[in-house]
Amino acid sequence: MPRLKAVLAYDGTAFAGYQIQPNARTVQGELETALAQIHKGEHIRTYASGRTDTGVHAAGQVVHFDTTLDIPEPNWVKAMQAFLPDDIIVQEVTRVSDDFHARYSASWKEYRYRIITGKRIDVFRRKYTVHVPQSLNEVAIRRALKSIIGEHDFTSFCSAKTDVEEKTRIIYEAELLKEHDEFIFRFVGNGFLYNMVRILVGTILEVGQGKRDSAEMEQILAAQSREAAGRTAPPQGLVLWTVSYE
Amino acid sequence: MPRLKAVLAYDGTAFAGYQIQPNARTVQGELETALAQIHKGEHIRTYASGRTDTGVHAAGQVVHFDTTLDIPEPNWVKAMQAFLPDDIIVQEVTRVSDDFHARYSASWKEYRYRIITGKRIDVFRRKYTVHVPQSLNEVAIRRALKSIIGEHDFTSFCSAKTDVEEKTRIIYEAELLKEHDEFIFRFVGNGFLYNMVRILVGTILEVGQGKRDSAEMEQILAAQSREAAGRTAPPQGLVLWTVSYE
Repeated sequence: MPRLKAVLAYDGTAFAGYQIQPNARTVQGELETALAQIHKGEHIRTYASGRTDTGVHAAGQVVHFDTTLDIPEPNWVKAMQAFLPDDIIVQEVTRVSDDFHARYSASWKEYRYRIITGKRIDVFRRKYTVHVPQSLNEVAIRRALKSIIGEHDFTSFCSAKTDVEEKTRIIYEAELLKEHDEFIFRFVGNGFLYNMVRILVGTILEVGQGKRDSAEMEQILAAQSREAAGRTAPPQGLVLWTVSYE
Repeated sequence: MPRLKAVLAYDGTAFAGYQIQPNARTVQGELETALAQIHKGEHIRTYASGRTDTGVHAAGQVVHFDTTLDIPEPNWVKAMQAFLPDDIIVQEVTRVSDDFHARYSASWKEYRYRIITGKRIDVFRRKYTVHVPQSLNEVAIRRALKSIIGEHDFTSFCSAKTDVEEKTRIIYEAELLKEHDEFIFRFVGNGFLYNMVRILVGTILEVGQGKRDSAEMEQILAAQSREAAGRTAPPQGLVLWTVSYE
């Protein structure tokens, strides 16, 4: 049975997160419903690179599944899109080897978190950015971001609601981009714990607003306690940007 | 009674247009509900610069109303925003003279229409842009836009569903902007007929796709018949950008 890798973009606004669950609209639920229709009722199990929470978006979520159908590779995007709602867009579908796994084969992931500062809310981006009325201290933010790069135990930046025991992750890149009127926090790492990016952003925003010193980041990491870090930033600013299998 | 001018931005997606109507969610309906709450139940009638259709957005819609309350001018934005849903944003509220009228005092309006070309749909902008898979001939589009500048009878670019008899309008500016990956059609005029911008864009897109020659624009204007023009472009690309009272 051919194994396929699909890259999906989705608007997380109207989903109760990625993972399938009864009586809730989820990305995985919509995806498996669409695949069942293409496969004439047969249930096709899908595997994603990881979950995303309610309200969190994706530009490049990756899933894999095995198909029993003989559809040529270039036709898969259109075939899937025909059965999917307009808040899930299939970016690309490719044939992969049988040992490819969307989660276990991933080498790194990139997340981005978009913020607009200033007095006014942009009504057209309210579901894809977070509005921060205060101006931010960019120098302090960049200093805080620098201190989380590398291999660390990220227990302090992980929701207490997790089953994962091993909380050491490597952050390869953590930087602040400025695009037009947006501040974009960009994180590249070998893995991310539950709510990790949102707690990092929430804490570093407190640094940017002068509520914490950037030097505190190291103490927070060392504390290995969720209490040591700041708030969890809201979901709508977050995008699972890309998953790499290099 | 002080007269106030309010500038509103709204996301038209979840509204059945601007104008109030029974059993439908409208911008005017939400606005008057909010004003009634601020005025302790008293109904406050509002007057807008004009209507917008279902799904059409605004960055700078202007309304006026008379208030019986003694709220200081700088507090009005927050007072109104507190009672409005998050798809209507109050940009600014100012005291105006008693002869100001949002519709009759307007000297010109600007509309913008946003298009993304290329193979892929951007899931985050699908409600605020129109996706055109084909590439567009920019030279032909600019030529077509040029030919509608000036004073013309725009009968051919007006929905048949209108009561307006006088269909002569002046277009001061009609141009194509390129911002990042977007094509933006920009129109400035002393007034716009029902569906006029959407029929102009729909017709000029046919020019851009090579289905019509740009020289046809003059013939279409001369025909004074809706049949002569092209399709009405979809609502979600359109934004009432600004209303001027200079």
